Parts: sequence; C-alpha cells; structure tokens
Amino acid sequence: MSVSKVPDVNRQMCPSRLVLEHVTSRWGVLVLAALLERSYRFSELRREVGGVSEKMLAQTLQTLERDGFVHRDAKPVIPPRVDYTLTELGKEAAEQVWGLARWTERRVDAVHAARESYDARKQDQSG
Amino acid sequence: MSVSKVPDVNRQMCPSRLVLEHVTSRWGVLVLAALLERSYRFSELRREVGGVSEKMLAQTLQTLERDGFVHRDAKPVIPPRVDYTLTELGKEAAEQVWGLARWTERRVDAVHAARESYDARKQDQSG
Repeated sequence: MSVSKVPDVNRQMCPSRLVLEHVTSRWGVLVLAALLERSYRFSELRREVGGVSEKMLAQTLQTLERDGFVHRDAKPVIPPRVDYTLTELGKEAAEQVWGLARWTERRVDAVHAARESYDARKQDQSG
Repeated sequence: MSVSKVPDVNRQMCPSRLVLEHVTSRWGVLVLAALLERSYRFSELRREVGGVSEKMLAQTLQTLERDGFVHRDAKPVIPPRVDYTLTELGKEAAEQVWGLARWTERRVDAVHAARESYDARKQDQSG
C-alpha cells in the first residue's frame, strides 16, 4: 500500500471514477436497479428498460459483466437461453442506485416546482 | 391524479428519468457529493472536482440550481463573491450519491480483480 493512494473519485486519474461512471451511466443505473428485483433474459430486460437500443443494452451488460456486477448465465438449451443476474458485488452497487432511482421518483414533483420557479425568476430578470 | 401515473424511471417518457440523469451526470455526482461536505465558491469547487472544465462546471451548477438542488448565493461585495450551497432537496440527492461515491472507492479493488479475471477468460476463449 506504499504506492497506491486512498481511492478518491475527485481525483481525475483515480480508477474509482471510472467505476462510478459505469454504475451511474444512463443505462447502467436502470439495468442495475432492474436486476436487483430479479434476473432477466436479454429481451425481457430490453422491454423493462424503456427506450434502450439492443446495441446499448448489450454494451451496458458487457461493461457491467466485466466490472464483476453482472453474471451472464448461458444455458445449454435449444433455443439458446441467456439469463443476466447480479453478483454479490453487483447487488451492493444496485442497492445504491436503486435507492437513488426510487428517491428520484418520489421527489420529481419537487424538482418540477423548483424548475418552474427558476424559469419564472429568469423571465422576470430578463423582462 | 387521474392523468399522471406513478413516476417510473424505466418508462422512457417519465420526467423522473431526466432528474435521475442530472443527478447521475458525470459531474453532477461529484459536485453534489462535494457540496454535501460544505459550501464552495466556484473556483474552489473547480479545484476540488478534478478535471472539470470551467464551462462544464458552470453548466452542471446551472442544471442543479434549476432542479432546486443547489442554491447560488451571490454576495454583494467587491470583488463579487458567489457561494454554492445545497438546498434541503439537494441534500437528499447528495446523500444518495455520496453513498454511491464512497461505495465505489471502497470496492474499486474488487472491480479491478473482476476485470482481470474477465479479460483472462476472454483471452483463453480466443487463444
């Protein structure tokens, strides 16, 4: 531990920042939160996470798999069946973002009220 | 409440998704987490959040201010002094992302180990 410093997401070159960016990526957040509820097949997950393209979902899952958050379970059946499940590390990450996603849903009305008030103030200043 | 549905970040058109994207934006996460510790002046905050450009920090703060998370306090002094502080709503958001940032720092080594193992498996498969 003489070389490495304490991880600090505020340092530009700290590897923890890249992990944070994967976990908080546009689709990463939603995929992790969905998988916290249950495992999904690719096509099911694509339906669950509205608006994600096949390509972006594949990329997101691959990044999360490489980071050790998602386990890709290819069943040797015909037709092929692949299930995506959280690992223990992935569950920890998903619990963090799940809380954030639910908080956002609870507080969206307060954010809207703040935006209206901000826009009205700006209009007053320019008017 | 007959028109609006329950907010659901998985629905593509749900406004809560945009709030989630602001809170989890590359710089939004780091700015919120920094402001949870104390209020900052612009230049101090730019030093604290490594790698952010002046333009991106200004944009991030403006988005967070409009969403009602950050209060911009312009003091009537010479030279001008502007402090950025979290609102109550911003504190709630920041507590969520603070937990996520600290979790990332704690678990970055596990993620690195997972990546090495993933890359070694892929190399075996292609070799």
